[in-house]
This record gives sequence, structure tokens and C-alpha cells, in this order.
Amino acid sequence: MLATPQLARFTEPLPLACGTLLRDYELAYETYGTLNAARSNAILVCHALNASHHVAGEYAEAPGNTGWWDNMVGPGKPVDTDRFFVIGVNNLGSCFGSSGPASRNPATGRVWGAEFPLVTVEDWVDSHARLLDRLGIDRLHAVMGGSLGGMQALTWAIRYPQRVAHALVIAAAPNLSAQNIAFNEVARQAIMTDPAFHGGNFAAHATKPRDGLTVARMIGHITYISDDQMEAKFGRGLREGLKFSFDREFEIESYLRYQGEKFSEYYDANTYLRVTKALDYYDPARATGGDLARALAPATARFLIVSFTTDWRFSPARSREIVKALLAGKKPVTYAEIDAPHGHDAFLLDHPQYHGVVRAFLAGAAAAGHA
Amino acid sequence: MLATPQLARFTEPLPLACGTLLRDYELAYETYGTLNAARSNAILVCHALNASHHVAGEYAEAPGNTGWWDNMVGPGKPVDTDRFFVIGVNNLGSCFGSSGPASRNPATGRVWGAEFPLVTVEDWVDSHARLLDRLGIDRLHAVMGGSLGGMQALTWAIRYPQRVAHALVIAAAPNLSAQNIAFNEVARQAIMTDPAFHGGNFAAHATKPRDGLTVARMIGHITYISDDQMEAKFGRGLREGLKFSFDREFEIESYLRYQGEKFSEYYDANTYLRVTKALDYYDPARATGGDLARALAPATARFLIVSFTTDWRFSPARSREIVKALLAGKKPVTYAEIDAPHGHDAFLLDHPQYHGVVRAFLAGAAAAGHA
Repeated sequence: MLATPQLARFTEPLPLACGTLLRDYELAYETYGTLNAARSNAILVCHALNASHHVAGEYAEAPGNTGWWDNMVGPGKPVDTDRFFVIGVNNLGSCFGSSGPASRNPATGRVWGAEFPLVTVEDWVDSHARLLDRLGIDRLHAVMGGSLGGMQALTWAIRYPQRVAHALVIAAAPNLSAQNIAFNEVARQAIMTDPAFHGGNFAAHATKPRDGLTVARMIGHITYISDDQMEAKFGRGLREGLKFSFDREFEIESYLRYQGEKFSEYYDANTYLRVTKALDYYDPARATGGDLARALAPATARFLIVSFTTDWRFSPARSREIVKALLAGKKPVTYAEIDAPHGHDAFLLDHPQYHGVVRAFLAGAAAAGHA
Repeated sequence: MLATPQLARFTEPLPLACGTLLRDYELAYETYGTLNAARSNAILVCHALNASHHVAGEYAEAPGNTGWWDNMVGPGKPVDTDRFFVIGVNNLGSCFGSSGPASRNPATGRVWGAEFPLVTVEDWVDSHARLLDRLGIDRLHAVMGGSLGGMQALTWAIRYPQRVAHALVIAAAPNLSAQNIAFNEVARQAIMTDPAFHGGNFAAHATKPRDGLTVARMIGHITYISDDQMEAKFGRGLREGLKFSFDREFEIESYLRYQGEKFSEYYDANTYLRVTKALDYYDPARATGGDLARALAPATARFLIVSFTTDWRFSPARSREIVKALLAGKKPVTYAEIDAPHGHDAFLLDHPQYHGVVRAFLAGAAAAGHA
């Protein structure tokens, strides 16, 4: 399947949660499949921390660059593009195409850098709603996402209930725990104390806080995979015996440093800061005094909530909080707790039971005429 | 109880696991209680990452400076100094009194810095055995410690079986998991990529890698307390409402930064690197092809193994590996899994059941004449 990135520019100011009006911004997006005549078969895919609008397929000019959820989305796949019109959109504040700290502020002509505002999950959903307006899609057959993407799906169901028929909330949580916030804050400190960060205006200094971003990614990565999976994959394996040095000795050290360094080459530090903050801030029940059921009251979508047994970043217990709140409000919800060893990252993997649940939910929804 | 730090200098070279001969070194230590005429009532207390020989009591000149295990060790306390002669000793490589990277190399007169060798748990135990020689103590009534201190106690029982009657191994593990090593490596990277680290020779540049050490401590701290405890203590509490800034917003951010910054003022970065490496290397079963029971075969001590239910750094499952290996070798072992909410740090806290177990084990041992 070939994918073609597109860019939509918006000049109607977007009010952000932080109080800033974003006056002029672009959203990068891709679509797969064909919008039907009734414009009723659209599925919006929301992305997590380091992904983008490039959800599925490959680019003609870069055949190896496959979308991040290509095992889930495509012809005949669980999210079947022979049947659905799938939209991937890049979040504001990202560094992969939509307006963000690494892009130029149209008002000044300079790279936004530290000046780019802090954005929230609600801001993303609002901006994506405008993209749907542009595409002439009034109501989504489904909105879906994993991790931070799942939080966006949940927010869609609350904030635009009339526009969402089905919401698939995968490996998510109703908010971040103190420990989740703690990990994010350590990562941010690693970035912000890197002298190459220059208060976020590193582009003006023609540098990048690579070391800080490497450490940040290493921390994040530990939380994405399960303890058991890490043990099975690396254990106490050594690369070349004990060296009594601070160089890469254990396989796990080598793996983590590689992941961190690779990430620091392509990811923007200011984006990382903003995405982790959006996660920290995410708390739909803040407006209802902590009552999640009440926060979910406006939702009219049918829900699929999926969690993974070994996910210790957003554990099944956190997904069950969402399920319980939905049930308390008598909302239609299907819950699947998938037995997978991979930890949080399981939501990105091709797991037959997991993919079967998503396929069945979307197929059943279509068959039952809920579209 | 008043404590008096003492310093013992050793000029007989100590062969280290890394291959270096440490020719001239000092060990800082303290003692509490009185050695009996038979010299049979000594208990050696081994310390963990950021502690020292100052186990109990206060210094006359600094009344607020109480030993790190003062709730455990003292007159009438579980480790009763009215009955036992307790020794606290600072590990080689530390920054609190024994020879380490922050002290001067007698051969050059300059601060050791990066030149101080990497030390192992076995090296520590060997050096502490020499201190016992110096004190005229042939056999310990008990050796005890929590976390890395527990690993030293286990090593004592294996390496000097004839010198240890009882070993108390608390909140420890038979080795570090891949995830444990991963956290240590991230912390080390944070330190080593701080430009103020200067390859470990920061003293020569009259600076300190404070930022790196702060991040390292923040990471460590997350692993010392349980998710639930962090949630109960901080949750999603905000200091002054949402600010949409990268300053300290959530209580947990504020707490962690405070802990990190405080640590970075008094702890030595080179020590941190070496202590985490000693942890990573620790693996008594390496010599027996992974067979812990065989590694423990030489031990003749009676064992008390203690774990804490919410400890996710060294979980009860890791302590049970030690217990199983001891049982496989038909060694006398008592195991207590303490229901405590505090995570790994529980070993430092005054928990009645935990302290009761330690008291009973030592009292029973004395009553049964196992001393």
C-alpha cells in the first residue's frame, strides 16, 4: 500500500488550553482507503509519543519507511482499508510535519523553539476535529489509538460525542499516576539540563541536546517493555565478558544506548517536553472533581477498551478504571485484557488475539449497523 | 548513643577483582556496644548505595546527624548494643570516609577521580575482613545488611564461611535483573554526559556534575518507593494549579527534584558510578554457571532472608530465589516476607513486624547458643 503525506493549513485561530491562540498552523495527515458516498466509514487513528500521521503503507520514494501501525491498518487487516477510510494525523507540537517547536512561526519567520505553546490532548482533538471538517467528515465510524493515542480517542468520545460512533482505547489510562509523572519529569530534567538545550532555543544555536534526549529516551524505553521481556531478551548477557569499565558491557546497556542515540537523532527535544507534559496534564475527570463516570457522561460511542497483562506503564488496572466508569454510566463497552509478554509496547505488535478483538469489534459494529 | 568515627589504614596491598592491587587505603568505621571477652558478640553491618559507616547514634559535635539505621541498632533495639558489639564500615570507593575517588591517591598526592579502580562486592567483603583482623575478631556473630548491604552479607557467608555464624540478607537479590541494570545505566549516562563530569576528573576542574547526579538520583528514587506509596503520598497533587510551564507543577516533581538536588550536593559522582557497577556485577552464581545453590554450598551460617511485598526493585521473588537455593543445599534459613507499603526503602523503616523478626532471629540465635 502506498501512502502520501498531505498538509492542511488552518488560519482560523485555535484556542489552546494554556490560554494562547494558535493563529496559523498546519496539520500533516495521510489517508488510506476510500471515503464512501455517505461519508460514514472514516476511522481516525491517533498516535502516541514518537509516532506520526504515517500510520500505514510505504512512501513511493522511501519503500522501507513503513507506517507505525501497518500491521493493524491496511487491506484485509484488522482496520480494513478495503472497507474503511482511515485517517492518520500528526499532533500539533510534533516534529514530523504538523506545526511544532521545530517548525517556523509564520508570524516571525523564525523557528518556534521554546516559544511554541504547551498543547494538551484536548487541543489535539480540537485541531483534528477541524481537519475532519476540512475533509467533510461529520461523524467518525471510529476513533482509535494506543497509549496517548487511546487518551485522544477517549477525549473524542467525551468532547465530540455526536461525531464518534465507536472509540477504541488501547493500552491507555484515565490519567497518569505519580510514578508515570515522575518518569516524565526525570526525562525532562535530563533534556533541560543539557547545556545544548539553550532553554529550548537550541536551533538558534545550531545544536541539539542529544545527550539529554538520549537519557530521556532510555528512561522511557525501560517503561515501555516488561521486566520479564527485558529479562528474556537480554538478561545478564555480556557483550564480551566483564571489562571493569563504564563502556557498554551488558547487552541491555548496549541496546538502551542504541535506542536512545537513534531517537536523539530524529526527535525534537521541545516536542518531547511538550508530549510528556500533555500526558501529565491529561485528566478528563479533573473537571468533574475526579469522577470519571461523570466526565464520561456525554459520550454516546460504543467502546472497546484493551489492556495488556504485562503493561506496567498503564497497567490493566488503569484500563479497568475506564471500564468501570463506563459501566457505571451504563455505556456500551467491550473490555479485552490481552495476555502478552511485551509490556506497554504490546499495543504496537501483531498479536493474534489482540488483532482479532479489534477486527471483531469493528466488523461487529459494521454488521450491527452501528455505523 | 554517641558515635565516634574511626579510620584504619592498610598498607598491605589488596587485590581487587578488576586486577588492580590497591596498595594503600583507609576504611572508616564506627563501633557500638562492647566486644565481650570471648570476642564472640560482633555484628557487622554492611551499607547500601548512599549510606556509610555511620549506622547508629549521633556525633557529639553534630547532634542532628543520626546514623542511617538508628531505628535498628542501639541499646534495647532489634540489634541490641547492650548485648552485641556492632561494627559499621564504609565501603571502598565511597565518598564518606573510606578511600574512594574523592580522596587522595597516596602514591600521587592528587585526588583519585577517574583513576580510582572499579570495586566489587567481593572486594568490599575482603577489605572488611581485614578490618575484622585488625579488630581481633575472628568470627562474626552476624553479618547483616539491606539491599546492596544484604548482598555483602550473602557474600560474607560464601567467601568467609568460617567467620560468619549468622547472615541477615534483607531486601536483596541474588543478582540484578536486566531492568535493574537498565536503570543503573541510565543514571550513569546522565552523569557521564554532564559536561561538568570531565571524564571523572571534575575535581581537577573545581566543579561537580550536579545536574547529572540530580537526574541519576531522581531515577534511583523512583525505584526505591512503591507505585502505590508514591500515589498515596503525592498522587496528581499540584503545588499551585496548572501553570503550563516546565517549572515544578506537580508535587511529585517538586519532591523528586528536591531529593535529586540535595543528593547532588553531598554525593560523589564517581562513587555513584562505581556503586552502581558493583551492583551490576554482583552475581555470586557466575562462578558456578548460574547455580546459586552450588555457589552457596560453602556457607555454614544460619540465614535470615527478609523481603518486602511492595519492593519492585528487589521483589520478594528475588529473595525467594535465595531461599530456594539455601533450601536446596539444606542450609538453615528463616524467611520473612513483610507486608509493607513502602517499596524497597521499607528496609530502612521502623516496621514492627520486620524489626520483630530481626530481634527474634538474633535473640533466638543467642539463646540457642549458635554464637
